[in-house]
Amino acid sequence: MRLATLRDGSRDGALVVIHPSGTLYAPTSEIAPTLQAALDAWPNAEPRLRALAETLARDPERGTPLDVADLAAPLPRAYEWVDGSAYPNHVRLVRKARGAEPPRDLLETPLVYQGGSGVMLPPTAPLELPEPTWGLDFEAEIAVVLGDVPQGTQAAQAGKHVRLLMLANDATYRDLVPGELARGFGFFQSKPATAFSPFAVTPDELGTAYQGGRVHLRLQTKLNDVLVGDVDAGPEMHFSFFDLIAHITKTRGFVAGTILGSGTVSNAAPERGVSCLVERRARESIELGAPQTAYLRSGDRVRIEMSDETGRSVFGAIEQVVR
Amino acid sequence: MRLATLRDGSRDGALVVIHPSGTLYAPTSEIAPTLQAALDAWPNAEPRLRALAETLARDPERGTPLDVADLAAPLPRAYEWVDGSAYPNHVRLVRKARGAEPPRDLLETPLVYQGGSGVMLPPTAPLELPEPTWGLDFEAEIAVVLGDVPQGTQAAQAGKHVRLLMLANDATYRDLVPGELARGFGFFQSKPATAFSPFAVTPDELGTAYQGGRVHLRLQTKLNDVLVGDVDAGPEMHFSFFDLIAHITKTRGFVAGTILGSGTVSNAAPERGVSCLVERRARESIELGAPQTAYLRSGDRVRIEMSDETGRSVFGAIEQVVR
Repeated sequence: MRLATLRDGSRDGALVVIHPSGTLYAPTSEIAPTLQAALDAWPNAEPRLRALAETLARDPERGTPLDVADLAAPLPRAYEWVDGSAYPNHVRLVRKARGAEPPRDLLETPLVYQGGSGVMLPPTAPLELPEPTWGLDFEAEIAVVLGDVPQGTQAAQAGKHVRLLMLANDATYRDLVPGELARGFGFFQSKPATAFSPFAVTPDELGTAYQGGRVHLRLQTKLNDVLVGDVDAGPEMHFSFFDLIAHITKTRGFVAGTILGSGTVSNAAPERGVSCLVERRARESIELGAPQTAYLRSGDRVRIEMSDETGRSVFGAIEQVVR
Repeated sequence: MRLATLRDGSRDGALVVIHPSGTLYAPTSEIAPTLQAALDAWPNAEPRLRALAETLARDPERGTPLDVADLAAPLPRAYEWVDGSAYPNHVRLVRKARGAEPPRDLLETPLVYQGGSGVMLPPTAPLELPEPTWGLDFEAEIAVVLGDVPQGTQAAQAGKHVRLLMLANDATYRDLVPGELARGFGFFQSKPATAFSPFAVTPDELGTAYQGGRVHLRLQTKLNDVLVGDVDAGPEMHFSFFDLIAHITKTRGFVAGTILGSGTVSNAAPERGVSCLVERRARESIELGAPQTAYLRSGDRVRIEMSDETGRSVFGAIEQVVR
């Protein structure tokens, strides 16, 4: 089942189910008016939403044509946005690029940061660059939407708390990062609002590509129509989503609707490309002594998408233009 | 006007207005069922809530007796919890206690961290200590609840976005902090869920004690009935709430219901005491070579309260027992 949220002028938008074609939707208002409402009562809402999705699949004439530009983020405001950094290759390259060491226990303990969750951007939102010197970069990621997760959840029990999967563009102002991290409290101003894919999908939509809390598909990123990343999201995700859930629940619980990100999807093989520009800059620094690639400029277009074995765009595309 | 949220089995509880005595309430269900709903439509909801509060003040027989144990946090789940560190004396002492330097620009740029906001604890919630070696400490703070705040808000324009004020106990597992901060991504596991005062109050409830985004009253903290802190929240708040709002909106906007904390209220004069144990331990380390005060132990009782010039407890008391 694939879900999306239509912008309707309200703060949380209107939940819809998506036809298998990805081009039609049906409103869910009689079941749950918003995605948060569905997540709040998932055991009751999920089978009814699935029944509606099946009806729409059988009878496309019940559907309304979808314009992705009308979509909000699946959760336009969320109660938490926790972003991991589960691909060690990304951490190593980014830290090298800013002359910092990766944590010594990089492979033993997940790195996560708490992000802002009050404003979650639509898949077609502009990428805001009010000040060019901030160094705007994209970060293509996978994110899961959780149900209620109690404190002390073990990785082996974490799978049942994953309700939905999405893609995210966790944009970063790179040139605000070093000063901010040097002060010891983590990211804040360096992380503007995050954008999400059109569709949030149940794990079964991924079939066997979703295994052990990892998505074994390629995440494709285009910059101005040029493919810059075709990165395998599976094998190099050192900490699975289940490991990340165990990590974040060590000292507190989480409510339904919490969004948990993988961090930038990254492969050690350079030919796979990148899911963010800072990795390319890091490679250039290592090979050529200095970065050659500029950060994003006004007018640049970023497209993030993931296709399954059949070529279907599972989540729809994040398509943002810098302004 | 003073507001509170009754636990009623729902995720957001039921909003009530409080009688001036602090011992009676009236339900607001016909105006706004929850505090978040009121904040979402504040210009419409506020005058109607005030009218109800005035009716209750005139006619206490309309009120229902309040048992503080029945209260949730004013916002049982919130869209963001951003905590500042606006009292430089606290930063200096805490960093000294863990052998770290305060940021060089401590007095020029606010320090803030993004906290978890999905689970906000009632004023009487237990203080959880599943593992004694984590070093549980309290942190008595003031927090404001914001309306919608656009990106790029200047301090001079920030005042109008402050809807309500509360007290908070931003508990910390001190012995998880150094390892976590060394990894560069800020606090996460070291910050369990935060507890809030019974009442969230409109700024006018503080009268002239609320000036320029600072609360000029004393914050009292008792540990096992002993007054350990009687700390003036006003003059030493180097960055006002308005300054903090300007800081956090540099690169993104915030939605109604965002909670913004002052950080631990702290005075340079030792005779004022402390709003957290780590400050006392830091003073002991400086004077005696080693901390003498233990962190919290099972059964310890923490009480946080603030009284106005007339002796009225403005926010009600946070009263938590360690377990």
